[in-house]
Amino acid sequence: MSVLVVGSIGLDDIKTPLEEQKDLLGGSTSYASVAASFFAPVNLVGIVGDDFPKEHVDFFRAHQIDLAGLQIVPGKTFRWSGEYMWDLNTRETRSIALNVFESFEPKLPPGYEKTPYVLLGNIHPNLQHHVLDQMKGPRFVIADTMDLWINNTPEELQRLLPRVHMLILNDSEARLLTKQTSLIKAAAQIRNAGPAYVVIKKGEHGALLFGPDGQFFSCGAYPLEDIHDPTGAGDTFAGGLAGHLASLNHGVVTFDSLRKAVVLGSVMASYNVEAFSLERLRTLTQADIEERYQIFKRMSQFEVIG
Amino acid sequence: MSVLVVGSIGLDDIKTPLEEQKDLLGGSTSYASVAASFFAPVNLVGIVGDDFPKEHVDFFRAHQIDLAGLQIVPGKTFRWSGEYMWDLNTRETRSIALNVFESFEPKLPPGYEKTPYVLLGNIHPNLQHHVLDQMKGPRFVIADTMDLWINNTPEELQRLLPRVHMLILNDSEARLLTKQTSLIKAAAQIRNAGPAYVVIKKGEHGALLFGPDGQFFSCGAYPLEDIHDPTGAGDTFAGGLAGHLASLNHGVVTFDSLRKAVVLGSVMASYNVEAFSLERLRTLTQADIEERYQIFKRMSQFEVIG
Repeated sequence: MSVLVVGSIGLDDIKTPLEEQKDLLGGSTSYASVAASFFAPVNLVGIVGDDFPKEHVDFFRAHQIDLAGLQIVPGKTFRWSGEYMWDLNTRETRSIALNVFESFEPKLPPGYEKTPYVLLGNIHPNLQHHVLDQMKGPRFVIADTMDLWINNTPEELQRLLPRVHMLILNDSEARLLTKQTSLIKAAAQIRNAGPAYVVIKKGEHGALLFGPDGQFFSCGAYPLEDIHDPTGAGDTFAGGLAGHLASLNHGVVTFDSLRKAVVLGSVMASYNVEAFSLERLRTLTQADIEERYQIFKRMSQFEVIG
Repeated sequence: MSVLVVGSIGLDDIKTPLEEQKDLLGGSTSYASVAASFFAPVNLVGIVGDDFPKEHVDFFRAHQIDLAGLQIVPGKTFRWSGEYMWDLNTRETRSIALNVFESFEPKLPPGYEKTPYVLLGNIHPNLQHHVLDQMKGPRFVIADTMDLWINNTPEELQRLLPRVHMLILNDSEARLLTKQTSLIKAAAQIRNAGPAYVVIKKGEHGALLFGPDGQFFSCGAYPLEDIHDPTGAGDTFAGGLAGHLASLNHGVVTFDSLRKAVVLGSVMASYNVEAFSLERLRTLTQADIEERYQIFKRMSQFEVIG
């Protein structure tokens, strides 16, 4: 089955303590769509200016991503510039230019409204609402968010929660959203507000998945020695997760399938941070994914079952 | 088989944001010995003053802990007073009185020198050396340490590393010891300096185990909603880990047995922080341990094997 991915598409300038690169493909939709495309067909919804390099469009197309929902309009593409501190965990936004993204209205092209899986990438909650308003009975809706929306549009975000099956956010965002220091309590509070499932990402410490009836899964992080560019790790994670769910033939989202989805999302993110922008995803193979999935299995398993 | 546990025994005053308690049983040996005693016979080595309450001695004895190595000398018992900040992750030492601990010389009583498993609790590296000098071919030696010794006695600590099979320390200590921000690199550097195995504790984020040939295990943390007193969590972890190893009949320390030991250490620590001092360990049962062990298994497993 397919997954609809909506969010931002941009051109990034990124500086790490070791390197600086400009005019890179970026944006939550770019990372999430390409990551998801390794598992399932993707319907992309996004906007770019007429300066958007054709090679990036070709790259999406090479990944069999459906681009009927890609709006190419006169003007400049969304731009973001950021700098990572020495530990690569903290980053500062140096500049943002919304450009054509400012007038983005995610209108779904015909047929998209029946996509069974939906990943609402990290954009203004009202845009996320607008996509859901057009959908016809999606099977599973995942929303990503960030501190910006938690702080600036709390009501719109709260109204979104009952409309999604899963919310993905990082640990500091979960604490910010709920005013709880305990991630366990934070997840319970978010689940009470709507989504049956919550994923809390903990960066180098892995991710936690919470579900109904106290169901809980703790996924360790892949032991990376060298991280080159953390940009898009969360989007790649969400894309891999959503893609795996959409790939399941039976179409029922069970807690077991979500566990595996969280691991595959982690696998995708672990590869993505090995290079700038989406570079590592360009050369990634199914064998690479399988190899690292097996490593996750070995590193988290402590007793052979059966 | 038995495990020899050496370290401090003290009386603690502990203040958390919610509660304050005084004259509590504390010290690395107390926590580690009692935790280990759930799995294997324990030979305790420590020192207390003649003010040490008899009820604590009785408590050790009730856990079948061999007390031939417990020195009771004229004077006052080691005292520590600490306060935890609102997040329970940071703590401040309000006062320390070494008292009789200042003259502690861990002399092993006859028979102890052949104990196959040794846990060198968190004390001055020279005391840890002194114990090893008396041992006759121990099978597996585990050392705990802390920032105090990394900063104040770096040479003594470096000399200890080739003498132990496993070093246990927390993430900030691993970074302090190696000047590496990556825990993967930190562990590799510590392993190069001696111990075949390194455990890095990450508090609420679990623990990492590193071994030869790139062997790696990531253990999630138990999702505790309410932590009452984090004191002794690390000692309880180390005690449970060492106790499980000593309990294995075959006596060969494999990476698989170490994985399980790390999980059981985590189980013991997760219980210990549920109450002040060693209170939770007083009522703990084997069924409790088994129950939480199964939860760890469920929460970390993402694909049924076989």
